[in-house]
Amino acid sequence: MTLEDELRSAHEAFYRAFRERDMAALEQLWAEEAPVACLHPGLGVLQGRAAVLRSWRGILDHPKAPVLHSTNAHVSVLGTSAYVTCLAGRPGEPPRLVTTNVFTMERGRWRLVLHHCAPLAPDALKRRDARDPHEDPFRLN
Amino acid sequence: MTLEDELRSAHEAFYRAFRERDMAALEQLWAEEAPVACLHPGLGVLQGRAAVLRSWRGILDHPKAPVLHSTNAHVSVLGTSAYVTCLAGRPGEPPRLVTTNVFTMERGRWRLVLHHCAPLAPDALKRRDARDPHEDPFRLN
Repeated sequence: MTLEDELRSAHEAFYRAFRERDMAALEQLWAEEAPVACLHPGLGVLQGRAAVLRSWRGILDHPKAPVLHSTNAHVSVLGTSAYVTCLAGRPGEPPRLVTTNVFTMERGRWRLVLHHCAPLAPDALKRRDARDPHEDPFRLN
Repeated sequence: MTLEDELRSAHEAFYRAFRERDMAALEQLWAEEAPVACLHPGLGVLQGRAAVLRSWRGILDHPKAPVLHSTNAHVSVLGTSAYVTCLAGRPGEPPRLVTTNVFTMERGRWRLVLHHCAPLAPDALKRRDARDPHEDPFRLN
Protein backbone atom coordinates (compact mmCIF):
# COMPACT_ATOMS: atom_id res chain seq x y z
CA MET A 1 0.00 0.00 0.00
CA THR A 2 1.49 3.35 -1.00
CA LEU A 3 1.33 6.37 1.31
CA GLU A 4 -1.27 7.79 -1.02
CA ASP A 5 -3.41 4.64 -0.73
CA GLU A 6 -3.12 4.76 3.07
CA LEU A 7 -4.29 8.37 3.09
CA ARG A 8 -7.13 7.74 0.67
CA SER A 9 -8.22 4.92 2.92
CA ALA A 10 -8.11 7.12 6.07
CA HIS A 11 -10.05 9.83 4.21
CA GLU A 12 -12.72 7.35 3.08
CA ALA A 13 -12.90 5.91 6.60
CA PHE A 14 -13.79 9.39 7.84
CA TYR A 15 -16.72 9.72 5.41
CA ARG A 16 -17.82 6.16 6.13
CA ALA A 17 -17.83 6.84 9.90
CA PHE A 18 -19.88 9.98 9.25
CA ARG A 19 -22.39 8.12 7.05
CA GLU A 20 -22.69 5.23 9.50
CA ARG A 21 -22.99 7.58 12.51
CA ASP A 22 -20.07 5.67 14.02
CA MET A 23 -18.75 7.91 16.79
CA ALA A 24 -16.23 5.28 17.99
CA ALA A 25 -14.65 5.19 14.51
CA LEU A 26 -14.48 9.00 14.41
CA GLU A 27 -12.79 9.04 17.81
CA GLN A 28 -10.20 6.62 16.45
CA LEU A 29 -9.63 8.73 13.34
CA TRP A 30 -9.00 12.06 15.05
CA ALA A 31 -5.46 12.52 16.41
CA GLU A 32 -4.91 12.25 20.15
CA GLU A 33 -1.50 13.89 20.47
CA ALA A 34 -1.32 16.39 17.62
CA PRO A 35 -3.39 19.61 17.86
CA VAL A 36 -6.78 19.25 16.14
CA ALA A 37 -9.26 21.75 14.71
CA CYS A 38 -12.54 21.56 12.82
CA LEU A 39 -14.40 24.08 10.65
CA HIS A 40 -17.98 23.12 9.82
CA PRO A 41 -19.72 24.83 6.87
CA GLY A 42 -20.35 28.51 7.60
CA LEU A 43 -19.22 28.23 11.20
CA GLY A 44 -16.18 29.36 13.19
CA VAL A 45 -13.14 27.35 14.23
CA LEU A 46 -13.33 24.63 16.88
CA GLN A 47 -9.95 23.96 18.49
CA GLY A 48 -9.00 20.89 20.50
CA ARG A 49 -10.09 17.27 20.53
CA ALA A 50 -12.84 17.75 23.15
CA ALA A 51 -14.61 20.56 21.28
CA VAL A 52 -14.19 18.86 17.91
CA LEU A 53 -15.53 15.48 19.06
CA ARG A 54 -18.41 17.18 20.90
CA SER A 55 -19.45 18.85 17.63
CA TRP A 56 -19.32 15.52 15.78
CA ARG A 57 -21.37 13.83 18.47
CA GLY A 58 -23.99 16.56 17.91
CA ILE A 59 -23.92 16.07 14.14
CA LEU A 60 -24.16 12.26 14.30
CA ASP A 61 -27.11 12.54 16.67
CA HIS A 62 -28.84 15.13 14.50
CA PRO A 63 -32.01 14.01 12.67
CA LYS A 64 -31.15 16.19 9.67
CA ALA A 65 -27.46 15.30 9.39
CA PRO A 66 -26.82 14.52 5.72
CA VAL A 67 -25.51 11.28 4.25
CA LEU A 68 -22.42 12.42 2.35
CA HIS A 69 -20.06 10.81 -0.10
CA SER A 70 -16.63 12.16 -0.96
CA THR A 71 -15.69 12.53 -4.62
CA ASN A 72 -12.61 13.84 -6.45
CA ALA A 73 -10.36 13.10 -3.45
CA HIS A 74 -6.86 14.38 -4.17
CA VAL A 75 -4.04 13.34 -1.82
CA SER A 76 -0.93 15.50 -1.25
CA VAL A 77 1.81 14.10 0.98
CA LEU A 78 4.10 16.42 3.00
CA GLY A 79 6.49 14.00 4.70
CA THR A 80 4.78 12.80 7.88
CA SER A 81 1.74 15.01 7.28
CA ALA A 82 -0.63 15.21 4.32
CA TYR A 83 -3.72 16.95 3.09
CA VAL A 84 -6.64 15.62 1.09
CA THR A 85 -9.06 17.86 -0.81
CA CYS A 86 -12.41 16.58 -2.02
CA LEU A 87 -15.93 17.49 -3.02
CA ALA A 88 -18.80 16.05 -1.00
CA GLY A 89 -22.48 15.58 -1.57
CA ARG A 90 -25.46 13.31 -1.30
CA PRO A 91 -25.51 10.27 -3.55
CA GLY A 92 -26.97 11.10 -6.98
CA GLU A 93 -26.81 14.87 -6.41
CA PRO A 94 -24.16 17.35 -7.55
CA PRO A 95 -21.59 18.05 -4.81
CA ARG A 96 -22.60 20.91 -2.51
CA LEU A 97 -19.55 20.97 -0.23
CA VAL A 98 -15.80 21.23 -0.58
CA THR A 99 -13.45 19.84 2.05
CA THR A 100 -9.85 19.84 3.18
CA ASN A 101 -8.76 17.06 5.55
CA VAL A 102 -5.26 17.32 7.06
CA PHE A 103 -3.67 14.17 8.44
CA THR A 104 -0.52 13.52 10.44
CA MET A 105 1.31 10.32 11.25
CA GLU A 106 0.74 9.39 14.90
CA ARG A 107 2.16 6.15 16.27
CA GLY A 108 2.43 4.69 12.77
CA ARG A 109 -1.09 5.62 11.67
CA TRP A 110 -2.49 8.54 9.67
CA ARG A 111 -4.79 10.49 11.91
CA LEU A 112 -7.00 13.47 11.19
CA VAL A 113 -5.88 16.82 12.61
CA LEU A 114 -8.02 19.26 10.63
CA HIS A 115 -11.35 19.04 8.83
CA HIS A 116 -12.47 22.16 6.97
CA CYS A 117 -15.77 21.74 5.14
CA ALA A 118 -17.37 24.63 3.27
CA PRO A 119 -20.26 25.32 0.90
CA LEU A 120 -19.66 24.99 -2.83
CA ALA A 121 -21.62 27.49 -4.94
CA PRO A 122 -24.15 25.62 -7.12
CA ASP A 123 -22.53 26.88 -10.33
CA ALA A 124 -18.92 26.71 -9.10
CA LEU A 125 -17.80 23.65 -11.02
CA LYS A 126 -19.33 24.75 -14.31
CA ARG A 127 -18.06 28.26 -14.33
CA ARG A 128 -14.63 27.99 -12.72
CA ASP A 129 -12.93 29.18 -15.89
CA ALA A 130 -15.66 31.47 -17.12
CA ARG A 131 -16.36 33.92 -14.33
CA ASP A 132 -17.71 37.39 -14.93
CA PRO A 133 -14.55 39.54 -14.66
CA HIS A 134 -16.51 42.24 -12.83
CA GLU A 135 -17.93 39.97 -10.20
CA ASP A 136 -16.72 40.36 -6.63
CA PRO A 137 -14.13 37.56 -6.37
CA PHE A 138 -14.88 37.02 -2.69
CA ARG A 139 -18.64 37.63 -2.94
CA LEU A 140 -18.48 40.09 -0.08
CA ASN A 141 -20.42 42.92 -1.71
CA MET B 1 11.92 33.24 17.15
CA THR B 2 9.84 30.16 18.00
CA LEU B 3 8.36 27.94 15.29
CA GLU B 4 5.00 29.43 16.17
CA ASP B 5 6.31 32.96 15.66
CA GLU B 6 7.81 31.97 12.31
CA LEU B 7 4.49 30.54 11.18
CA ARG B 8 2.49 33.53 12.41
CA SER B 9 4.88 35.73 10.47
CA ALA B 10 4.49 33.65 7.26
CA HIS B 11 0.71 33.72 7.70
CA GLU B 12 0.68 37.51 8.18
CA ALA B 13 3.00 37.90 5.17
CA PHE B 14 0.38 36.12 3.08
CA TYR B 15 -2.38 38.56 4.09
CA ARG B 16 -0.03 41.51 3.68
CA ALA B 17 0.89 40.40 0.14
CA PHE B 18 -2.83 40.06 -0.63
CA ARG B 19 -3.62 43.54 0.74
CA GLU B 20 -0.67 45.14 -1.04
CA ARG B 21 -1.47 43.32 -4.33
CA ASP B 22 2.12 42.06 -4.22
CA MET B 23 2.23 39.13 -6.64
CA ALA B 24 6.01 38.70 -6.29
CA ALA B 25 5.61 38.21 -2.53
CA LEU B 26 2.79 35.69 -3.07
CA GLU B 27 4.98 33.76 -5.51
CA GLN B 28 7.69 33.61 -2.85
CA LEU B 29 5.23 32.42 -0.20
CA TRP B 30 3.73 29.51 -2.14
CA ALA B 31 5.80 26.31 -2.09
CA GLU B 32 7.74 25.38 -5.22
CA GLU B 33 8.49 21.72 -4.52
CA ALA B 34 5.62 20.53 -2.33
CA PRO B 35 2.18 19.99 -3.92
CA VAL B 36 -0.05 23.07 -3.60
CA ALA B 37 -3.81 23.61 -3.72
CA CYS B 38 -6.17 26.53 -3.21
CA LEU B 39 -9.88 26.73 -2.42
CA HIS B 40 -11.42 30.18 -2.86
CA PRO B 41 -14.78 30.94 -1.18
CA GLY B 42 -17.58 28.93 -2.75
CA LEU B 43 -15.39 27.60 -5.54
CA GLY B 44 -13.84 24.24 -6.38
CA VAL B 45 -10.29 23.04 -5.79
CA LEU B 46 -7.36 24.43 -7.75
CA GLN B 47 -4.40 22.03 -7.81
CA GLY B 48 -0.82 22.90 -8.70
CA ARG B 49 1.31 26.01 -8.48
CA ALA B 50 0.47 27.28 -11.99
CA ALA B 51 -3.32 27.17 -11.49
CA VAL B 52 -3.09 28.56 -7.96
CA LEU B 53 -0.85 31.49 -8.90
CA ARG B 54 -2.99 32.23 -11.96
CA SER B 55 -6.04 32.55 -9.71
CA TRP B 56 -4.18 34.90 -7.35
CA ARG B 57 -3.01 37.03 -10.25
CA GLY B 58 -6.68 37.35 -11.25
CA ILE B 59 -7.70 38.31 -7.73
CA LEU B 60 -4.92 40.88 -7.24
CA ASP B 61 -5.83 42.49 -10.57
CA HIS B 62 -9.53 42.54 -9.76
CA PRO B 63 -11.10 45.94 -9.08
CA LYS B 64 -13.42 44.47 -6.44
CA ALA B 65 -10.85 42.33 -4.63
CA PRO B 66 -11.33 43.02 -0.91
CA VAL B 67 -8.75 44.38 1.53
CA LEU B 68 -8.65 41.68 4.19
CA HIS B 69 -7.09 41.40 7.62
CA SER B 70 -6.58 38.13 9.45
CA THR B 71 -7.74 37.87 13.06
CA ASN B 72 -7.76 35.06 15.64
CA ALA B 73 -4.84 33.30 13.93
CA HIS B 74 -4.18 29.98 15.67
CA VAL B 75 -0.97 28.10 14.81
CA SER B 76 -0.69 24.29 15.07
CA VAL B 77 2.70 22.71 14.36
CA LEU B 78 2.96 19.16 12.98
CA GLY B 79 6.73 18.59 12.80
CA THR B 80 7.91 20.05 9.48
CA SER B 81 4.39 21.03 8.45
CA ALA B 82 1.83 23.22 10.20
CA TYR B 83 -1.63 24.66 9.82
CA VAL B 84 -2.97 28.07 10.76
CA THR B 85 -6.68 28.80 11.13
CA CYS B 86 -8.01 32.35 11.20
CA LEU B 87 -10.98 34.59 10.59
CA ALA B 88 -10.68 37.28 7.93
CA GLY B 89 -12.55 40.45 7.13
CA ARG B 90 -12.35 44.07 6.17
CA PRO B 91 -10.96 46.46 8.76
CA GLY B 92 -13.67 47.64 11.16
CA GLU B 93 -16.21 45.03 10.02
CA PRO B 94 -17.05 41.68 11.59
CA PRO B 95 -15.15 38.80 9.95
CA ARG B 96 -16.95 37.30 6.96
CA LEU B 97 -14.48 34.58 6.05
CA VAL B 98 -12.77 31.66 7.75
CA THR B 99 -9.45 30.30 6.51
CA THR B 100 -7.08 27.40 6.87
CA ASN B 101 -3.51 27.91 5.65
CA VAL B 102 -1.23 24.85 5.57
CA PHE B 103 2.52 25.39 5.50
CA THR B 104 5.46 23.08 5.00
CA MET B 105 9.18 23.60 5.56
CA GLU B 106 10.94 23.95 2.22
CA ARG B 107 14.68 24.69 2.11
CA GLY B 108 14.56 26.04 5.66
CA ARG B 109 11.56 28.30 5.14
CA TRP B 110 7.84 27.86 5.89
CA ARG B 111 5.98 27.94 2.62
CA LEU B 112 2.28 27.83 1.87
CA VAL B 113 0.93 24.60 0.38
CA LEU B 114 -2.82 25.02 0.91
CA HIS B 115 -5.15 27.99 1.33
CA HIS B 116 -8.79 27.18 2.00
CA CYS B 117 -10.97 30.25 2.48
CA ALA B 118 -14.71 29.96 3.02
CA PRO B 119 -17.70 32.13 3.94
CA LEU B 120 -18.55 32.60 7.61
CA ALA B 121 -22.28 32.86 8.33
CA PRO B 122 -23.09 36.35 9.71
CA ASP B 123 -24.36 34.91 12.99
CA ALA B 124 -21.80 32.07 13.25
CA LEU B 125 -19.66 33.52 16.01
CA LYS B 126 -22.57 34.53 18.20
CA ARG B 127 -24.53 31.34 18.02
CA ARG B 128 -21.85 28.65 17.95
CA ASP B 129 -23.06 27.18 21.22
CA ALA B 130 -26.71 28.02 20.88
CA ARG B 131 -27.91 26.47 17.64
CA ASP B 132 -31.46 25.41 17.01
CA PRO B 133 -31.27 21.63 17.55
CA HIS B 134 -33.59 21.04 14.60
CA GLU B 135 -31.65 23.13 12.16
CA ASP B 136 -29.89 21.34 9.31
CA PRO B 137 -26.31 21.12 10.59
CA PHE B 138 -24.89 21.35 7.06
CA ARG B 139 -27.48 23.84 5.74
CA LEU B 140 -28.15 21.63 2.76
CA ASN B 141 -31.95 21.63 2.95
